[in-house]
Amino acid sequence: MEITAYVLNKAMEAKEGARAIARASSEQKNAALIKMAEVINKNAEQLQKENKKDLTAAKKKGLTKAMIDRLTLTAERIEEMSQGLIDIAHLPDPVGEVTRMWQRPNGMTIGKMRVPLGVIGIIYESRPNVTADATALCLKAGNAVILRGGSEAIHSNKAIVKILRGVAKKQGIHEGVITFLENTDRKAVMEMLKLEGVIDVVIPRGGEGLIRAVTENSRIPVLKHYKGVCHVFVDRDADLKMAEEICFNAKVQRPGTCNAMETMLVDEKAAKKFLPAITKRLKRAKVNIKGCARTKKIVPSVSEAKADDYHNEYVDLILNVKVVRDIDAAMDHIAEYSSAHTETIVTEDYGKAMRFLREVDSSSVFVNLSTRFSDGFQFGLGAEMGISTDKIHARGPMGLEELTCTKFIGLGNGQIRS
Amino acid sequence: MEITAYVLNKAMEAKEGARAIARASSEQKNAALIKMAEVINKNAEQLQKENKKDLTAAKKKGLTKAMIDRLTLTAERIEEMSQGLIDIAHLPDPVGEVTRMWQRPNGMTIGKMRVPLGVIGIIYESRPNVTADATALCLKAGNAVILRGGSEAIHSNKAIVKILRGVAKKQGIHEGVITFLENTDRKAVMEMLKLEGVIDVVIPRGGEGLIRAVTENSRIPVLKHYKGVCHVFVDRDADLKMAEEICFNAKVQRPGTCNAMETMLVDEKAAKKFLPAITKRLKRAKVNIKGCARTKKIVPSVSEAKADDYHNEYVDLILNVKVVRDIDAAMDHIAEYSSAHTETIVTEDYGKAMRFLREVDSSSVFVNLSTRFSDGFQFGLGAEMGISTDKIHARGPMGLEELTCTKFIGLGNGQIRS
Repeated sequence: MEITAYVLNKAMEAKEGARAIARASSEQKNAALIKMAEVINKNAEQLQKENKKDLTAAKKKGLTKAMIDRLTLTAERIEEMSQGLIDIAHLPDPVGEVTRMWQRPNGMTIGKMRVPLGVIGIIYESRPNVTADATALCLKAGNAVILRGGSEAIHSNKAIVKILRGVAKKQGIHEGVITFLENTDRKAVMEMLKLEGVIDVVIPRGGEGLIRAVTENSRIPVLKHYKGVCHVFVDRDADLKMAEEICFNAKVQRPGTCNAMETMLVDEKAAKKFLPAITKRLKRAKVNIKGCARTKKIVPSVSEAKADDYHNEYVDLILNVKVVRDIDAAMDHIAEYSSAHTETIVTEDYGKAMRFLREVDSSSVFVNLSTRFSDGFQFGLGAEMGISTDKIHARGPMGLEELTCTKFIGLGNGQIRS
Repeated sequence: MEITAYVLNKAMEAKEGARAIARASSEQKNAALIKMAEVINKNAEQLQKENKKDLTAAKKKGLTKAMIDRLTLTAERIEEMSQGLIDIAHLPDPVGEVTRMWQRPNGMTIGKMRVPLGVIGIIYESRPNVTADATALCLKAGNAVILRGGSEAIHSNKAIVKILRGVAKKQGIHEGVITFLENTDRKAVMEMLKLEGVIDVVIPRGGEGLIRAVTENSRIPVLKHYKGVCHVFVDRDADLKMAEEICFNAKVQRPGTCNAMETMLVDEKAAKKFLPAITKRLKRAKVNIKGCARTKKIVPSVSEAKADDYHNEYVDLILNVKVVRDIDAAMDHIAEYSSAHTETIVTEDYGKAMRFLREVDSSSVFVNLSTRFSDGFQFGLGAEMGISTDKIHARGPMGLEELTCTKFIGLGNGQIRS
């Protein structure tokens, strides 16, 4: 009961904040963001001191090196976090934008105007910079945010939130706009997910287990992606040198991310020429390659891919390689195994590029680009609130625009219906 | 178990249909719609014969006159249904539209492309024309539809679906695009609502009870509105003659609709002049007026409004009237009592018109227009799949655009991340 009341109170504070921030001017929001950036920089040492507490606890708990790395606030990362707020301040304000207007035969003008979503709940794991990024995106788009970070980052998150709320208060922004759940019990999340009508949307970020638990228990709409099983298809008409660079980059540049390539599909007409060079280079980079039977014929040293492997998100230096008959077979494979995150075709053929763009049903579809570009910063959205592989509301990286909706507006001079 | 398998089979057929129709050309879809319109007209007599069966059963069951009216397929309504298909064929195809493209510093081009949602389930009550409208909108937007009409319209719906599927087959369109649940058991709906991952979105249309049951039981995203408690605010700077026409139209022209006015808010500075004339006219039209204390002072003959009345969707010739201090008090009242459907301000003051448009958080917000214009046809969307008062994905009447999502596309020439 206590936790129910705690979460409800927090959410109601956010709801009040949402109504206030929806009406704030761009100037007021931008001034607050720039001030927040300044105060974060000024308090870098204090933030690192609080972060140390989390790092000590993490080491005690025996978290992996990768997790500890994600958790660490270096001076450089604090500077980046601060710069991120400034970048978002400089983006155009989506709220109030009229995306389209048209005249009707009776003289009235109908249009669509961007409006904030309201209260956005974000549930995330170890990276404390998400606290600042998510707050800035939500605030700029006229929303209140309820932040529910992981227990491993609790001291860092509290310190960041204290700064953000302190600045908000001084700048005349309702503090409920930045609402933080200090209770890191899983129960607090479950209570959040019941608050339909108070919280407007929930965005879970983290492991597949967390995301499934949120989706299954939420009465509030959820925007999410479960995983990223991304494909690159090397067409027979590809520039093979370009294909090699793209595939190598998509797998090796940062294999631990959701937009890294997990399966490389190679047109049978390109396989003999392409596979020996790329596999050699990947192996030198310590990539464990699992190939189909036809791949093994060309490069006998690769290990064997099982059918189930094609479903895997390795998030590691492991890669499936499959030789396919043509673009249709490649798209069939993608339709069956993709997680709808990001797929790339490498080709110089115009018709196949256009078909792939149009027919592949993933949230980001590329021609001649590394899958690693599927990211809000890379797309120029300023930052991202997460990535959606859903089809409702948002598909792909979510920036400011995806944190709004459009309402209809009508301008008349006395029209009535007959 | 049998019903589970029945619904799953139907949904899987729709899913196959969805994959096929997503790739169909505009020409192919339009040709099918125009042929469907033709065959519906040709079979008008047969449709009326089947409709008679429903009408006979309805009379036996003792359905209300209004319900029987909604159920009736007159020759004129069949002609309208047919014309609706032609109108939708003539609308631009949303699928494949690139809504925006921009360049990134590294030379790649990023854009957003409209894509179909997939499989759309629609759960509706007595009006058989929805069967044709919903099919046409879904098909044109590249989606498959699962139709679940009410038991009272079963013969009419089956006859319409038979025509639509027959034409689809002849025109080379996968029949799964038009999937109809003949089982009118409530259990069939419950089975539908479990099919997350097969059905992409569910749209319930009908009474509040049906919609709440669907929302509470669905694991699939739901787009809906519970009810329409629409307001007109007559500002002190209104053209009072215009205000009278708008208020009269909004209440009386068709009181049984969700976009009819339920509460009229009148600025205290306009009340003395405005109220006597409008109430006289409304009373002549047999409107039962419930007024606040200040309204009663000006027009003593009205009955008294209780606080709870302001929550009511009367869908009848009943109206709440409240005198408010100013635009702020009006917007506060709307924020508290509105169902976020449609609100209008009547004013000649530019600043207040702009404030109302921007600050009122409803799905349709008008200046100097009757609330009755809040409708897909009236907006020029061709038809509507329903109205959403949600903030996720769609807000307001849902036309073709709202039956799509956008994915990101990227065009490069070998860019990789460094």
